[in-house]
Order: sequence, then C-alpha cells, then structure tokens
Amino acid sequence: MSAIKPPVRQARGDATRRQILDEAERIFADIGYAAARLDHVADAVGIRRPSIIYHFPGKQQLYDEVEADIFSSMHAFVLNRMKGVTDPMAQLLTLLDAWLDFLVGRPTAARIIQRLIADSAAHGDNPVRFSETALQDIEDVVAAGVVSGQFQPVSAMVLLNLVAGGALHYVCNAHQLGPSRSYDPSAPAQLVEFRAMMHRLAKAAVTDAPA
Amino acid sequence: MSAIKPPVRQARGDATRRQILDEAERIFADIGYAAARLDHVADAVGIRRPSIIYHFPGKQQLYDEVEADIFSSMHAFVLNRMKGVTDPMAQLLTLLDAWLDFLVGRPTAARIIQRLIADSAAHGDNPVRFSETALQDIEDVVAAGVVSGQFQPVSAMVLLNLVAGGALHYVCNAHQLGPSRSYDPSAPAQLVEFRAMMHRLAKAAVTDAPA
Repeated sequence: MSAIKPPVRQARGDATRRQILDEAERIFADIGYAAARLDHVADAVGIRRPSIIYHFPGKQQLYDEVEADIFSSMHAFVLNRMKGVTDPMAQLLTLLDAWLDFLVGRPTAARIIQRLIADSAAHGDNPVRFSETALQDIEDVVAAGVVSGQFQPVSAMVLLNLVAGGALHYVCNAHQLGPSRSYDPSAPAQLVEFRAMMHRLAKAAVTDAPA
Repeated sequence: MSAIKPPVRQARGDATRRQILDEAERIFADIGYAAARLDHVADAVGIRRPSIIYHFPGKQQLYDEVEADIFSSMHAFVLNRMKGVTDPMAQLLTLLDAWLDFLVGRPTAARIIQRLIADSAAHGDNPVRFSETALQDIEDVVAAGVVSGQFQPVSAMVLLNLVAGGALHYVCNAHQLGPSRSYDPSAPAQLVEFRAMMHRLAKAAVTDAPA
C-alpha cells in the first residue's frame, strides 16, 4: 500500500469508516457489546466483514472507537456551549443542558453510556478511559461553584448520579415504561418540562435553601 | 413423576432452584442477558446443564424468573416499609428510601434494572411485565400527593427519571468512575450523604418553594 492514498479513494475510505462507526454505535446501543457481531455491522453498512477489518482490527477496537467518539463529541459539545459562561450556577445549568441536548439528539450514545454504567466488568481499560472528560467537566464546575462560595459543599458524584444521570434515564426510558407511558424525549413540551425540573433540582442541590 | 414429591427431595429441589436463581441473577447482572449462558450458571451452582433445564426450560424463562423475583421482592419490601405511612410527603420519601435500601442491599438487581432501561429491544413481553408494580407504586404516591394539594402537579415519570433513577446510578456507578472515585454505596457515611440529597431533591421536586 502506498503511504499517500489518492484523494478520491481516501475520501471514499473515510466515508465508509464513518458509516461503520454509525452503524456500530446503533447496534452496540440496541443489543450491547456482548451480543453485537462484526457481521451485523457489515450487513447494516452493506459491505463484507473483511472491509470492516481493514478499518478496525476487531470488535473491541470498533467498540472503543465508538465510545471514544461519543465522549469526545459530547465534550466538544459542552465546550462550545460553555464558551463565555463564567458564573458557577450558569456553568452548572449550561453543562447539564449540554448533556441533555446531546443525549436527546443522540439516543444511541445515551444507551451506550447506560450500558457502560451497568457493566461490572470493564471493556479493555474502561470504564473511565473515555468518560474521564465528562467526569472532569462536572467536577470542575462543582469545584468552581464551591470555591466561589455560591455553592454549598456538595459532592460531584452525588450530583452526577442524582441529576446528570437523570438525562440518561429520560432518554433511555422513553419507550421502556410500557405503551401507556411512552413519550418522545425530543418533543418540545416534554423537553421543557424535564429541563425545568432538572434546573430546579440542580439549584436545590447546590444551594442552602431548605427544600 | 409423582405429583406429590417426598418432602426431603422437594426441599433439596427448592434449594437448588433458589441457588440457580441467585447465580443467574449475578451472571445476568455482570455480563447481561446476551452474553450469559446456561452453562455459566450451571458451573457457578456446581451442577450440570440438564439440572437447570429440569427447573427452567431455557435462558429466557430463567431470566424472566430472575426479573420477576427482583420486582416482586422490591414491591414486597416497599409495601412493608409503607405500612401505616399516610402523609403524602412521608410516603414519597419512604418509597424512595425503600428502593434505595433494596438496591444497595442487592446491587445485582440494580444492574439488571439498569440494563433493562438500556435495552431498546424487549425480552419477551418486557419491559413492563415485571416492573409494572414499581411504576404503579410511584404513580400512586405522586397522585395521592397532588390530589391532597400537598404536591404541585408533577409528572411521576420526571420524578422517576430524575430522582428515583439516581439510586440505580448510585449503586451501579460505585466502581465505574475510575479508581480515584470509587466508593462503597453501602458505607454508612456515603449512604447518609446520598439519602439526604435524594430527600432534598424529592422535596424540591414536589413543592412550590422556588429552588
């Protein structure tokens, strides 16, 4: 193989790689790592198994790339939203909003993170190889709020599990509560209601006001 | 086979059945439905595969019994705690405490419920075949609080995702946030901190007090 690929062929290769990642994300989200097969991904993309192996040597590497892409995209989404936001409370609500909007827009990511939390055995050097940026984001925001005196001393972990984690359940539970309770997590009225409650609880968590 | 089994043999059979359910719950929790094999369960119990088939015709039936047992045990735990509790706010906090304590004491149940929420494809007639009692429990408590005027109108689904779901993440995330952030969810100080925040947020969610 030549080190310098012809541009057209390179572009086609990149497009195939992206398609493989997208279909793999959907399949890992739907049925989980253990049940997913490279053949499922190949079928979904409409290519043969060896074409996947050309881009990703195996299922673990493909999964790792999917998870890395989810967390790096989510972190970039957060950074973009946080630009110029300096007040600690505004930072906290902006971070939570960014996570909520990212997960609502990419429910496959929500399911993969939900599965990652359930797995007691790590995949490779997971759990935090890729999620570290997200954990650091909330720790930084909480620490800044506490140092400023605007927040009561509060554990980032408690906030993560009780408030931020709610966005995961909001997205994943949409069709898991039975037909009579199904909802569309991206429907504006639904999202407004959930976001208002998330803000309310985030404020209650970090302020001294007796709830 | 005789319809009436000798008592000793029956007791031994019941004990084996219970052991199979316990090991199956641990394995389904650790690696999920798709990756779990009846052979894993047989090895863990120290019996051979046909002995499992004698009690449970297949993996789906074994999984269903595990999930049914989790939700019926959780519901019984809730009913016991709720006895004599009539004030709506006390009912809400008692329900949340019961779920938290049940899940802390049975982390395998927390992982299985966490996986159930992640699964976009249902197992059999799931997702709500077994979880219906839990959903009904929180809906009843929220409805009673709203009717009494003590709660603002609030969606049980929002409360489920944002507050009750926190107990699942609290248990499942204990060793999923990296070595420096690991915690023991059953350690008294940890549990007191989490419970206090859960109560604070539950009150903020249902009362009119501006957070």
